[in-house]
Amino acid sequence: MESRIESAGNGKVKLAASLRQRKHREKTGFFLAEGVRLCEMAAASGWKISFGLYTPSVAGEKRAGALIGRLKELGCLLYEVPENVFARASSTESPQGILLVVEQKGISLGELRLPEKPFLMVMDGIQDPGNAGTMIRLADAAGMDGVILLKGSVDAFSDKTVRATMGSVFHIPICSNTDRKEFMEFVREKGIRLYATTLDEGAKVCYEADLSGSIALVFGNEANGVSSDILRMAEGMYIPMFGKAESLNVATAASALAYEAVRQRRY
Amino acid sequence: MESRIESAGNGKVKLAASLRQRKHREKTGFFLAEGVRLCEMAAASGWKISFGLYTPSVAGEKRAGALIGRLKELGCLLYEVPENVFARASSTESPQGILLVVEQKGISLGELRLPEKPFLMVMDGIQDPGNAGTMIRLADAAGMDGVILLKGSVDAFSDKTVRATMGSVFHIPICSNTDRKEFMEFVREKGIRLYATTLDEGAKVCYEADLSGSIALVFGNEANGVSSDILRMAEGMYIPMFGKAESLNVATAASALAYEAVRQRRY
Repeated sequence: MESRIESAGNGKVKLAASLRQRKHREKTGFFLAEGVRLCEMAAASGWKISFGLYTPSVAGEKRAGALIGRLKELGCLLYEVPENVFARASSTESPQGILLVVEQKGISLGELRLPEKPFLMVMDGIQDPGNAGTMIRLADAAGMDGVILLKGSVDAFSDKTVRATMGSVFHIPICSNTDRKEFMEFVREKGIRLYATTLDEGAKVCYEADLSGSIALVFGNEANGVSSDILRMAEGMYIPMFGKAESLNVATAASALAYEAVRQRRY
Repeated sequence: MESRIESAGNGKVKLAASLRQRKHREKTGFFLAEGVRLCEMAAASGWKISFGLYTPSVAGEKRAGALIGRLKELGCLLYEVPENVFARASSTESPQGILLVVEQKGISLGELRLPEKPFLMVMDGIQDPGNAGTMIRLADAAGMDGVILLKGSVDAFSDKTVRATMGSVFHIPICSNTDRKEFMEFVREKGIRLYATTLDEGAKVCYEADLSGSIALVFGNEANGVSSDILRMAEGMYIPMFGKAESLNVATAASALAYEAVRQRRY
């Protein structure tokens, strides 16, 4: 608590505020972890923390106070800032009073460590950060080996995505902003079967698709679905629908398929 | 297009605006359907439409223009209003220029038409309207026979919930604001087995729970889970988690379980 920043014009406050924008996240390689729970997970993750900001009032709370103590033990640079300065740095409407600027640990396809039968999730144009975050959390829970976001998808490290992952962003390997051609070569080389949901004739109901081997489940853009180049490489399957609903929310669909794959792979 | 409203002080504009609040929805029995797609579904649903508002610019668009024509044929009261007046009535930040005030068609437990082996969804304290709407859409897609919202859950007819249902609010029977005791008697009488996710010992993995009979899947509050009185009546099961994620978003969990039930019931 030795260090204080009093002005919203301070470079660190401005840096944190700039991370709301994808271009600044990409330029700096940093992202924001905000709120006590997410900051606890960042502290436990071993990811490199550039610095942190907190308000005097949060420092007085038990759980946040303990977290600040732990971060100091880790040698993390921490600055106490007034509430109004914190609000400038924060990306949330009701700031929780603590945030960390963390170095992104996105990996390339080549760095993905794959078991004998990989189980992957691919996002091909997912736009909603809440959907993307929920799907990263799902991939973690379902024991997948990684999440690949193809170019044209939302940024895995946007503040809304990170919050929706509930910390899974720190736990599951993420290849963000992946080149499509590279991805297509990667799956060919590794013998990974792509599965995409489609309404094409010849598509199998998901329960009859063989999801027990080396697979990647591909989920497309919320409005337009999976892009045609990827679709051509993929085997089609569908989630049966019985009522009048025309479709499912993409994260909901991902869950039905991921847990059908879990059943086939483990039960 | 004969009728026009020019003032935001008009009673119909004020009524529409008031429907953002649950107390006004409950007092009047109305709710809002906003946007072309949802209004189309309202028009096709046969639900009673009290009146509608639209802006001159939306009336000039092809799809919206056709919808307005259809609504007139149905004898629906429609009023053209200036953009600024529409914005007052609308519940969205970027209004699409058309909304309908629709009569709620919630039903009581006694009115639920049940097949031999009912398949129901129960919300016990779900708070997030987006989750509730996504779950209603899921229940529709999975061919469930109805959705029951116990008292203490979000309102099924809130504007955010209705939007997230993507129209399924018009398609699947919904018992909203249901008394807990009545619900408990109902499931006893009908011989419906309640299933809730739990971490209790003795809970079965979802794939081994028997979901093929008369069942209701119960989903609890986002933070606190299913309430203890309901939990005592329910059989426990769990969704296996392999990574470091501690839990799933409730709508994501609902999807994994609903589609495991679909598999057992139909495949």
